[in-house]
Amino acid sequence: MSLKFKNVYLQESASVVGPYEAEGPLKKYFDKKYSDLYFGTNSWEKAEVKLLKESLELLLKKSGINKEKIDLVIAGDLLNQITASSYAGSPLNTPFLGVYSACATSLEAMLLAATFIDCKREKNVVIATSSHNMSSEKQFRNPTEYGAPKPMSATFTATGGVSVLLSDEKSKVKVESGTIGRIVDYNQKDPFHMGAVMAGAAADTIYRHLTEMNRKVSDYDLILTGDLGKYGKEILIDFMNEEYNIDLTKNYNDCGVILYDTDRQKEVQAGGSGPVCSALVNFTMVLDKLKKKELKRVLLVATGALFSPTFVYQKENILSIAHAISLEAVE
Amino acid sequence: MSLKFKNVYLQESASVVGPYEAEGPLKKYFDKKYSDLYFGTNSWEKAEVKLLKESLELLLKKSGINKEKIDLVIAGDLLNQITASSYAGSPLNTPFLGVYSACATSLEAMLLAATFIDCKREKNVVIATSSHNMSSEKQFRNPTEYGAPKPMSATFTATGGVSVLLSDEKSKVKVESGTIGRIVDYNQKDPFHMGAVMAGAAADTIYRHLTEMNRKVSDYDLILTGDLGKYGKEILIDFMNEEYNIDLTKNYNDCGVILYDTDRQKEVQAGGSGPVCSALVNFTMVLDKLKKKELKRVLLVATGALFSPTFVYQKENILSIAHAISLEAVE
Repeated sequence: MSLKFKNVYLQESASVVGPYEAEGPLKKYFDKKYSDLYFGTNSWEKAEVKLLKESLELLLKKSGINKEKIDLVIAGDLLNQITASSYAGSPLNTPFLGVYSACATSLEAMLLAATFIDCKREKNVVIATSSHNMSSEKQFRNPTEYGAPKPMSATFTATGGVSVLLSDEKSKVKVESGTIGRIVDYNQKDPFHMGAVMAGAAADTIYRHLTEMNRKVSDYDLILTGDLGKYGKEILIDFMNEEYNIDLTKNYNDCGVILYDTDRQKEVQAGGSGPVCSALVNFTMVLDKLKKKELKRVLLVATGALFSPTFVYQKENILSIAHAISLEAVE
Repeated sequence: MSLKFKNVYLQESASVVGPYEAEGPLKKYFDKKYSDLYFGTNSWEKAEVKLLKESLELLLKKSGINKEKIDLVIAGDLLNQITASSYAGSPLNTPFLGVYSACATSLEAMLLAATFIDCKREKNVVIATSSHNMSSEKQFRNPTEYGAPKPMSATFTATGGVSVLLSDEKSKVKVESGTIGRIVDYNQKDPFHMGAVMAGAAADTIYRHLTEMNRKVSDYDLILTGDLGKYGKEILIDFMNEEYNIDLTKNYNDCGVILYDTDRQKEVQAGGSGPVCSALVNFTMVLDKLKKKELKRVLLVATGALFSPTFVYQKENILSIAHAISLEAVE
């Protein structure tokens, strides 16, 4: 069943991004921008660790909280053995839980953080996630041949680190409810069409959330999936209509489409992806609009593809999952 | 702070193992044993998925619970992108949370399960983990040269799948408290001496658990780390004595040493490892002894090395973490 939270508030967030995100339509919302993908390091993996670590440091600074006051860090990322999170989280010296839901990781972390806080088991909980375009390319698509074309349905892994502080202290944005996703298998096999892979998981979670919470699509000002991209977004709209007779055409969008200007930034193809993609939209612009009450209630639905290159080579289906969190502007 | 649980009970567990475990001293405790590492499949990865899936099926059968009654599955493993857990967990069609703490994964999952149950957010929660000797060798040590010797401090990844059902219904074994680990960095760099890497994390968690719970070593009939192996075990004993003046010589042992007969089964070198190693001891023999009240209170301290081959190649330190759970025989 979906989880209802009584006293969980989003306190602050911090974001660090790479050049593609810094040139995109959300640039004014990011705290720190780098003009190349090295971030002053000499490997893509170290670059990813650095940007996540910097987002954690920035979060502490922006929220004026001492690291000794952090009770728990929950983090995850795409790098094998979620190493960006472990290496970036290590200096905080706090209890740490590693999580993995591919690109839905940030909301798995938030569901857990909200549960710990609402049950008064922990007070100040930080969630964090990252991705890096080149560390992902290297890991998932190595060898990346020069000039090898990708189909237009392929998405572009976003580069960035996002950290968010949650606690039971009243703020302008409440974490009101959430739905833990189920693993969905729609016989998808194309790693260059993640939108198609993940749309089924988004549909399952949105439907379950609305049903279990006894709500309608119109109870939300905005429903935001992430990261289906422009084709996956269309698939979800069609699927929700055909399967559940639910109309998503009015107040729905996808973080993979919002993060970049897909007309101008041709290299992103169908849009952004990676665990940080939805976090870079949800915990910057969306958070800002909730704080200003331009949005009253938003349903975040982060989507993730559960697979590995090894399983793709072995011709297994690509599974997917989506977790949902409902955020509300506090009156 | 350590977590105290009021109404969390361990209902049932199920285990599936490979040939090395089936020939070890705990053989009578395992539910299903295979005589080769293929498990009837044609890849090491599919073999790992199969053994975890079978442990989940066995768990449902042994506990007489219908899969529709399972509210949540929390699982993780070593395979890149925790794919054994995702593929094995998918057929259950339940809400699913992927977790990762390397070989400490089972207790991260149990800490979360206990929190959800104790806070009355979920009723029946299944935790699951696996490892497979050859899928690990292939992933972490590829290319594995013929005849390449390993130092005696190297451990042997256990092959198996373990699933455990927890709920708020009173049973013979209570999940009484737990401590979420911190990431520890003791400047360790040798991937062939994981015992040395992880001993520091075990020490940190045991010390924090005892301090935060205001307990002594003698409050436990048994303290069980997993999976330090025989050298790591000695390092922990020395370290606890020197650093904290705590004597672990009387009621302490390590799951990596218990799972195999290290004198007879020479191939395991310093002992067992992998996420399933401690689970194959904790949720079979230890559980049995708690049910029979041969043990009254046990502190499980699963240890994990947080790293990846990529970070080792880049000469980064190998980090580690340990999570603790206290189990009690119910009067």
